[in-house]
Amino acid sequence: MTGLLSNIIEMIKPLDRQAMAEAGLRQDILTKPQGSLGRLEELSIQLAGIQRKPIPQIRHKAIITMAGDHGVVAEGVSAFPQQVTAQMVYNFLGGGAGINVITRQVGARIIVVDMGVATELKPNPQLLSRKVAFGTQNMSQSPAMTREQAAKAIETGIEVVASEVAKGLDIVGTGDMGIGNTTASSAICAVMTGKPVAEVTGRGTGIADKQLTHKVKVINRALAVNRPDPKQPLDVLAKVGGFEIGGLVGVMLAAAAHRVPVVIDGFISGAAALIATALSPELKDFLIAAHVSAEAGHQLLLRHLGLKPLLDLGMRLGEGTGAALGIFLAEAAARVLAEMSTFAEAGVSEGDTPGK
Amino acid sequence: MTGLLSNIIEMIKPLDRQAMAEAGLRQDILTKPQGSLGRLEELSIQLAGIQRKPIPQIRHKAIITMAGDHGVVAEGVSAFPQQVTAQMVYNFLGGGAGINVITRQVGARIIVVDMGVATELKPNPQLLSRKVAFGTQNMSQSPAMTREQAAKAIETGIEVVASEVAKGLDIVGTGDMGIGNTTASSAICAVMTGKPVAEVTGRGTGIADKQLTHKVKVINRALAVNRPDPKQPLDVLAKVGGFEIGGLVGVMLAAAAHRVPVVIDGFISGAAALIATALSPELKDFLIAAHVSAEAGHQLLLRHLGLKPLLDLGMRLGEGTGAALGIFLAEAAARVLAEMSTFAEAGVSEGDTPGK
Repeated sequence: MTGLLSNIIEMIKPLDRQAMAEAGLRQDILTKPQGSLGRLEELSIQLAGIQRKPIPQIRHKAIITMAGDHGVVAEGVSAFPQQVTAQMVYNFLGGGAGINVITRQVGARIIVVDMGVATELKPNPQLLSRKVAFGTQNMSQSPAMTREQAAKAIETGIEVVASEVAKGLDIVGTGDMGIGNTTASSAICAVMTGKPVAEVTGRGTGIADKQLTHKVKVINRALAVNRPDPKQPLDVLAKVGGFEIGGLVGVMLAAAAHRVPVVIDGFISGAAALIATALSPELKDFLIAAHVSAEAGHQLLLRHLGLKPLLDLGMRLGEGTGAALGIFLAEAAARVLAEMSTFAEAGVSEGDTPGK
Repeated sequence: MTGLLSNIIEMIKPLDRQAMAEAGLRQDILTKPQGSLGRLEELSIQLAGIQRKPIPQIRHKAIITMAGDHGVVAEGVSAFPQQVTAQMVYNFLGGGAGINVITRQVGARIIVVDMGVATELKPNPQLLSRKVAFGTQNMSQSPAMTREQAAKAIETGIEVVASEVAKGLDIVGTGDMGIGNTTASSAICAVMTGKPVAEVTGRGTGIADKQLTHKVKVINRALAVNRPDPKQPLDVLAKVGGFEIGGLVGVMLAAAAHRVPVVIDGFISGAAALIATALSPELKDFLIAAHVSAEAGHQLLLRHLGLKPLLDLGMRLGEGTGAALGIFLAEAAARVLAEMSTFAEAGVSEGDTPGK
């Protein structure tokens, strides 16, 4: 493990129980029946513990969308051709993708990172060029990347977060783009949860039954060829992962180290979370699962992580679209705690009065 | 039935299938796998059908929060004293309630209406004083209101919407405040769905087991005393309803008549929707269920209405808080359809290319 990575992992400390207790006490004196804002109340308390503030604040919001290509698409595992990864990166930069629309609505900035797109991308002031390589190798024939590349991908995620924290960052959402990355994510999920590949493999961008059977076969071959060791998360990332997935591992670890709540998106972010929480079990408390996606295996993955999703809207776009909606809910949770009047301030009688 | 009410019901026309078809076609050429935004896509198509626009717009947003008192609180059915209704109205006007916080976040205006609070409220430019009476009668002893009052409550809701439509209204959410109003709503729900009272009665603001048993008894007594006729929705509203519930019936009908989508909040709004859809079955297509609340019976009520909630966050505050979150999601749905680039515009290759 590199110095940067082990330092970041060491920086991850438990939630601040004192701030959480104070947030909980405040929730109970706000002008509403106790507990009546349900998960928004729980979320506000989690945010307090992460930010170490009795009244957490969500003002500076960002989605980090990382893009990378996958050698395994040569096996015909996706409904879309590989060049779509690069095309969609340009779409992000042009503001026309789903994630652009939703981040505009929630007032979050979006950071687009080229972690390993297979083609040279035109320079753009909005694009962070952090290419580890021009796409991964075909994992059904050899490891997707070297151990050094896996470490490099994670470190890049750590550095991206550090530079965003310097600009002000109260919450971060994870996003991904990479044709073929549900294949890598299913492989990671199978290894880390111990479940059969068929149970954690879905249709990705929308493949038909026959192609799905083929995708499962390709993943099984990748596992047989590489034999990734679930006890060594970096080994798993290197053998069957992706550069954007590694980058997101770094984003999650660094955010937690900097006490920034992480809203994880769908299946690909979930796969990154499996690697990241294996590297640092403390990380789990810093994660907020935005939604359960329509991708097969995501529900199982979230259960394995012990996370309960906020939304269940049948979404499966990736890019961070689910995470952006989750950031909205986290902001609502923080605002409620910060802005609602207490019973005393508003002159409202409290409940359970005698005789009622 | 009064002229205003029957006119409004007649104004409710089916969804615009042409606009919906065009919205669906557009969804399929936006830069994402088809269907990958799940319920946001469905929602955008429903909005198109309601607004009669292939690309619906959600800019002018409002929550209408109606307040009223309930004579039945004399039976000890609530954890909070009756004066809390008035106190919370002042809290809404002061900006310190949960609904104020969330409407500020989503950029919706809030219209607070006194439909029948039991005390005289201080005049306030932000308050619509439309008191039908100083609280309903105790429904466990007599009808909650007269048929004339029930009609008046609905007409008031219709008029409030008409005046908001004149200011610009692209979507409306329903909200309620009224100590004792889960008791009235459970009674309505039992009558309109035919389910036993115990199955549709919950803890409201947070009563204990013993009080819950008592609440069920009080509702059963109210039904025995009044024998409301499920085939006559106005009869049900008059006998076991509330002024704010009647007002919300009018809001829903008028919004549909004016082609404005209605995001319904929790259990009380749901009870109003039971009455309103019984008056106009076409109304159902104009309703969006924001969330399923923690209140017992709400899930059953939504199933009866044939509505699938967007959110399930264990909320049970009322006021329109769930509806305000639902408005955010509806706006996201509309924005995605309006603002995302098409494959052609963004130069992105479409899926299912040969050889993949």
